[in-house]
Amino acid sequence: MPSSGNAVTIFLRKPMNWFLLFIPFTVALEHVHSIPAPVLFFSAALAIVPIAGLIVASTEQLSTRTGDAIGGLLNATFGNAPELIIALVALKAGLLDMVRASLAGAILANLLMALGVAFLLGGLRFKEQRFNPVATRAYSTMMFVAAVSMTVPSAFNRAFATQGGPIREEKMLNIGIAVLLLLAYGLYLLFSLKTHPHAFASVESGQSGGHDLDEHWSVTRAIVTLVLASAGAAWMSEILVGAAEGTGKALGMSQVFIGIVFVAIVGGAAESGSAIAMGRKNKMDLSVGIALGSCIQIALFVAPVLVLASYFLAPRPLELAFGRAEIGSLFMAVLCGALVCGDGQSNWYKGIQLLTVYAIIALMFYFMPAAT
Amino acid sequence: MPSSGNAVTIFLRKPMNWFLLFIPFTVALEHVHSIPAPVLFFSAALAIVPIAGLIVASTEQLSTRTGDAIGGLLNATFGNAPELIIALVALKAGLLDMVRASLAGAILANLLMALGVAFLLGGLRFKEQRFNPVATRAYSTMMFVAAVSMTVPSAFNRAFATQGGPIREEKMLNIGIAVLLLLAYGLYLLFSLKTHPHAFASVESGQSGGHDLDEHWSVTRAIVTLVLASAGAAWMSEILVGAAEGTGKALGMSQVFIGIVFVAIVGGAAESGSAIAMGRKNKMDLSVGIALGSCIQIALFVAPVLVLASYFLAPRPLELAFGRAEIGSLFMAVLCGALVCGDGQSNWYKGIQLLTVYAIIALMFYFMPAAT
Amino acid sequence: MPSSGNAVTIFLRKPMNWFLLFIPFTVALEHVHSIPAPVLFFSAALAIVPIAGLIVASTEQLSTRTGDAIGGLLNATFGNAPELIIALVALKAGLLDMVRASLAGAILANLLMALGVAFLLGGLRFKEQRFNPVATRAYSTMMFVAAVSMTVPSAFNRAFATQGGPIREEKMLNIGIAVLLLLAYGLYLLFSLKTHPHAFASVESGQSGGHDLDEHWSVTRAIVTLVLASAGAAWMSEILVGAAEGTGKALGMSQVFIGIVFVAIVGGAAESGSAIAMGRKNKMDLSVGIALGSCIQIALFVAPVLVLASYFLAPRPLELAFGRAEIGSLFMAVLCGALVCGDGQSNWYKGIQLLTVYAIIALMFYFMPAAT
Repeated sequence: MPSSGNAVTIFLRKPMNWFLLFIPFTVALEHVHSIPAPVLFFSAALAIVPIAGLIVASTEQLSTRTGDAIGGLLNATFGNAPELIIALVALKAGLLDMVRASLAGAILANLLMALGVAFLLGGLRFKEQRFNPVATRAYSTMMFVAAVSMTVPSAFNRAFATQGGPIREEKMLNIGIAVLLLLAYGLYLLFSLKTHPHAFASVESGQSGGHDLDEHWSVTRAIVTLVLASAGAAWMSEILVGAAEGTGKALGMSQVFIGIVFVAIVGGAAESGSAIAMGRKNKMDLSVGIALGSCIQIALFVAPVLVLASYFLAPRPLELAFGRAEIGSLFMAVLCGALVCGDGQSNWYKGIQLLTVYAIIALMFYFMPAAT
Repeated sequence: MPSSGNAVTIFLRKPMNWFLLFIPFTVALEHVHSIPAPVLFFSAALAIVPIAGLIVASTEQLSTRTGDAIGGLLNATFGNAPELIIALVALKAGLLDMVRASLAGAILANLLMALGVAFLLGGLRFKEQRFNPVATRAYSTMMFVAAVSMTVPSAFNRAFATQGGPIREEKMLNIGIAVLLLLAYGLYLLFSLKTHPHAFASVESGQSGGHDLDEHWSVTRAIVTLVLASAGAAWMSEILVGAAEGTGKALGMSQVFIGIVFVAIVGGAAESGSAIAMGRKNKMDLSVGIALGSCIQIALFVAPVLVLASYFLAPRPLELAFGRAEIGSLFMAVLCGALVCGDGQSNWYKGIQLLTVYAIIALMFYFMPAAT
Repeated sequence: MPSSGNAVTIFLRKPMNWFLLFIPFTVALEHVHSIPAPVLFFSAALAIVPIAGLIVASTEQLSTRTGDAIGGLLNATFGNAPELIIALVALKAGLLDMVRASLAGAILANLLMALGVAFLLGGLRFKEQRFNPVATRAYSTMMFVAAVSMTVPSAFNRAFATQGGPIREEKMLNIGIAVLLLLAYGLYLLFSLKTHPHAFASVESGQSGGHDLDEHWSVTRAIVTLVLASAGAAWMSEILVGAAEGTGKALGMSQVFIGIVFVAIVGGAAESGSAIAMGRKNKMDLSVGIALGSCIQIALFVAPVLVLASYFLAPRPLELAFGRAEIGSLFMAVLCGALVCGDGQSNWYKGIQLLTVYAIIALMFYFMPAAT
């Protein structure tokens, strides 16, 4: 058992935790009135990265104490807490375009960027890496269902929304789809944790399904960390979201680009980091599971929760009405992911393929005129 | 050999056959002038279900007497007779939108609903069910070719049709594609019945390719049943189609929703029922074969026959000009089916995935304003 | 070692080489002023077929002398020289629509027609043919990345191009994507020639990766042939491109149809011929490798080179702004190819499936009004 002093030493030994210094720095910056928005934005972004890491770490600590099923449930529910918190803050501020962009961007970042870097770096160390193709196909199909669930209300909006905003039928459709997705997500947890956990087992015999923890926290410490980190994430998110508009203007970037690239990467940094680290350790099942599992959570849990929450929190309801470019990118990413991962093997060039698609999509959003 | 009296007992022992009472009931209802359209519509729908069952049963009886190749041909040609009869009646009545909706809906109902229920109910009894992945890939590719063959004329129509209806080139394109599809269908029968029947063989050694029949009919009985049931189907279809418009108005549903959900389910009830029953008996190859084979027949045989027949029967020619929502749904269903079935395994959650996509699509058509 | 006279005999023994007589014939025709454009067009087309064969043959001869890596590079770079030369000539003439149509058409012709004929003819001789599914999946993913890279600028153009032509951002996007594609292509060569050549190895043990050459040329002869044939290709291409417009008008065909079907088939005739010949010899890995490899070269090497070259050669820059019909066809072809080839097996009916999709697409372009 490490003593408290020892715990601090361990804490400071991780370079990631030094980034926590960006929290007081960001708070201080906020009181400097002449500060340029981009400085504030990127300072808050850098502060969120270690906070997201702490949320993920304390959830994992809690989940090891609770048995597989509840632990899996905890991980599944809190795993995307950073994305959820940022999106809720943006929702409350009425920045619905940024909420949608950050949802789509989080899926693109996990599916194309995190997995692409994991395949590339893993593939540079190991000639051929293998993972469970049955699990990957289950993930791919879920991703496809998720893409369908986002396409339908988007197409509906484009076809039928009037000048005065969405029609009544569109609201009903969005609520209906949100309820269906939450149901499908609940059954997915039942399937993956209870009835068919073996389908998600690793191809390498010795590898456990869970994360290797280098330290063990008490339950109190885990809960306190989780609560504090969540509060910190909410605080920094408010500063981040508040500075987003000014940042876009200062750097000549559209709101959609800021949301789909920067906000999405910041929210998912903890998981992207884990997926990449596992890829470099040749634990491909964990790597693919984290990256694709995170996409599924965002599409089937975070997105419908935001739709339903918008009726209580937001100035106006959130519809899953993505633009053509976002929906097109999602479909291309999902099909590309299914093609790349479908055979349960990876190599460095598969990473390049995913990253090329990500780069093409990012370029498109970068050059897209702001009016749309 | 069962005596005639015995045959009646067997006949009445099947709960399905009691539904035949809906035939006289529907005919009687039709003469009550104040009857609400939905009552007549659903009564005719319930009458068609056992008639469709009789058509399928008599075709199977005939096909066991004729040897494999001719039997297969008979099954392939008359297997979707109920859908064809309903569509021909609607075609004659000039309800081209309903014809198109029922074609698209029949594919969605077979691919997503029937297969989804079969996977779900089968998967609740058997942890993992297996089927021949080579056959499934052949079906998936055929489905994809079929989706392409429907997309091309639909896109053409959207781009080039004028106020005054389709241009001459569009009619030529539709006839050309119809001829190509019938050619491809003929060669598909040659492939699956003559040159490569083994590719469609069941993965379980003992399982025969054909249906288990609990009774054997004489050829005369089979032919008489087929003729009478077809006539009955045509009669009930006329009442069904005639009441469709009034039903939509009374229930506040669009014509497209009535066609794509109710008419499609009624026409395919017999086959959907078989596919689900086979899934529950763990005969997955038959289940998948019936559901996907039926989709292929509709797209490659029923649809082009209707296009060509419209030049003789319908007040104006039928173009395969589906709306965006229908084409989008078809593509999503086909890709989803290919992803779900591609590995030759199923479980209860794959059923949920297919049903979720079906529910999302049905919700969309339900909420879609009638104007489109 | 064949003597020089012997070489001429061998040369004339190939029926293909007799087509070289179309070169002087075309040149003569060009000076007859009243000659109808279609006669000149098809004469030049027939002249290009054997020239393309000579370019491919001399590249192969050179590549056998240089070791695997350099040889592979040579083949990869000059393999689509005929397409590149025709496109450069059309680019210089400012026929940007024809350049785009011939790029899209070359992919369709290789992926659907050449492979379809190879599967059909091969499958008529051999019941079941097998090839390396790992390599095919790598090709499919590359094709998908290529389709994405063409979709993004096309959608961008449709959404944002103004009356006065493409906006500045669109040009930047096109240049950015062209650079990304060339990078991805360079890394693909590194992957397939250096780090993972085994992934592209043939499934049949005895079969070598290279082509069987029935004769060996001296390096001088190979280089002289390559230079002369390239010059001849450029000459005939100028006549071909010059007569294209008149041919379209005379035969009532749109420029897009001429480009997407005729020009594309002419440019790829040499490789299509090889792919089909290998299919008939049951060398399916070579057949699939030639057909799909050629598609990848066109999308990842020829297309970006043309975009960049247009800034120096063409009257205005070339954008990868394909029409909806072209992009839709490309995606359908790529997904269809992935479904058909994904399991590493082929039979005659898979050929029919590919050819049906090709025929449907060709019909669409044939009937498409010229205005679009």
